[in-house]
Amino acid sequence: MARNDERRSALADAGIRVLADQGARGLTHRAVDSAAGTPRGTASNYFPTRDDLISALVDRIGERLTPDPEVVAAVDRSPDRALFADYLHDVVRRLRADPHVSLALFELRLEAARRPAVAEALGAWRQRAFQADLAFNAEAGLPGGRTEIALFHYAIDGLMLDQLTVPLDTGMSADAVVDELVSRILR
Amino acid sequence: MARNDERRSALADAGIRVLADQGARGLTHRAVDSAAGTPRGTASNYFPTRDDLISALVDRIGERLTPDPEVVAAVDRSPDRALFADYLHDVVRRLRADPHVSLALFELRLEAARRPAVAEALGAWRQRAFQADLAFNAEAGLPGGRTEIALFHYAIDGLMLDQLTVPLDTGMSADAVVDELVSRILR
Repeated sequence: MARNDERRSALADAGIRVLADQGARGLTHRAVDSAAGTPRGTASNYFPTRDDLISALVDRIGERLTPDPEVVAAVDRSPDRALFADYLHDVVRRLRADPHVSLALFELRLEAARRPAVAEALGAWRQRAFQADLAFNAEAGLPGGRTEIALFHYAIDGLMLDQLTVPLDTGMSADAVVDELVSRILR
Repeated sequence: MARNDERRSALADAGIRVLADQGARGLTHRAVDSAAGTPRGTASNYFPTRDDLISALVDRIGERLTPDPEVVAAVDRSPDRALFADYLHDVVRRLRADPHVSLALFELRLEAARRPAVAEALGAWRQRAFQADLAFNAEAGLPGGRTEIALFHYAIDGLMLDQLTVPLDTGMSADAVVDELVSRILR
C-alpha cells in the first residue's frame, strides 16, 4: 500500500513535469510513463482516464504547495501585518523554488477553460484552498478578510506568472512587490 | 498590399483561435490554415517559421488590445483616480469581451517559459506596453507611477486568468475587484 502510494506520487510528479515542459496538450499516459521511467501502461493502470490523471495531478500539486505544518505552527509571534507579510513571502519563495508545480497549475487553469471536467476538479480545489486561507487568517487573528485575501490571490497569481515566464522590468524584486502589496492591500 | 495585410490579419486571428482552443502545442501552420479556411501552405507562405508565426500573433494581439484612440482622447475629464479607475474598467471589459486574445496571450506566456525565442518576442512587447502605460499616465497627469502600474499589471493579470478559466467565488464581481484595487493601490 505504502509502495503503491509512492508510485502514485512519482507518476503524478512526472505528470507535473510533463505539463510544465510540454503544456496541457502534451499530457498523455504515455508521456507520463516516459517521464517517470515506468513501463508503458503503468500510468493507465493507476489513472485509467485522462480526467483521473488530471485529478491526481491537482491533488499532488496541492500536496506540494502545502507548507510544512510545523513551520507554520512553530511561529511564536503576534498575528500582525509583519507576520502576514512573512507568510506571503514564504508562499512566493516556495512557488519560485518549485516552478514546475506553478507552471503545471497555470497549464491546468488554461486547460480548464477548454474542458469542463478539468474546470470542476480545479475549481473545487481552488475554492477549498481559498476558504482554508480565510479560516487560517481568522483563526490566527491575522489581518485580512475575504476581500483582502481575494486581492492577494489575484496579485500573487499575476506576479508568479510574470516571474516564471517573461518578467517585466519594473525595478522591483518579487519580495519588494509582496511588501508593496501588503502595505497597500491591508489597511 | 492592403489585401495582403488583410490576409495576414485573418491568418493571425486564426492563430489566436488555435492558441486559445488548443494550447500552444496545437499551434502549427496546418492548424492555422485549417482555422482560417485557407489552402494548406498559406500560413507557411506568410510566416515561414513557427517563430515568425508567433511574432505575428504577438503583433496582432497587441493590435486587438489597443483601445480606440478616439475613445481615449475624447475624454474631457480631470485626470483623477475616478478617471484612472474608468480606464482600468475599460481594459478589463475589453479583455473579457475578447477571451480568445487573453487566453492566447496566457498560452504564449507559458510557451515563453519553454522557448527563448517566444520569451524574446513577448518580453519586448510586454516591456514596451508597460513603458507606454507609464508614459500615458505621466502625460495625462493621472495618478500612479512605476510601482503602482506594476502592481496593477500583476493584479489584473491574475484577475483575468481567474475570470477566463475557473473563477473563485470571492463574493466580488470583476468590476468590484477593480474598484478595490484602485482604492488600495493608489494612495
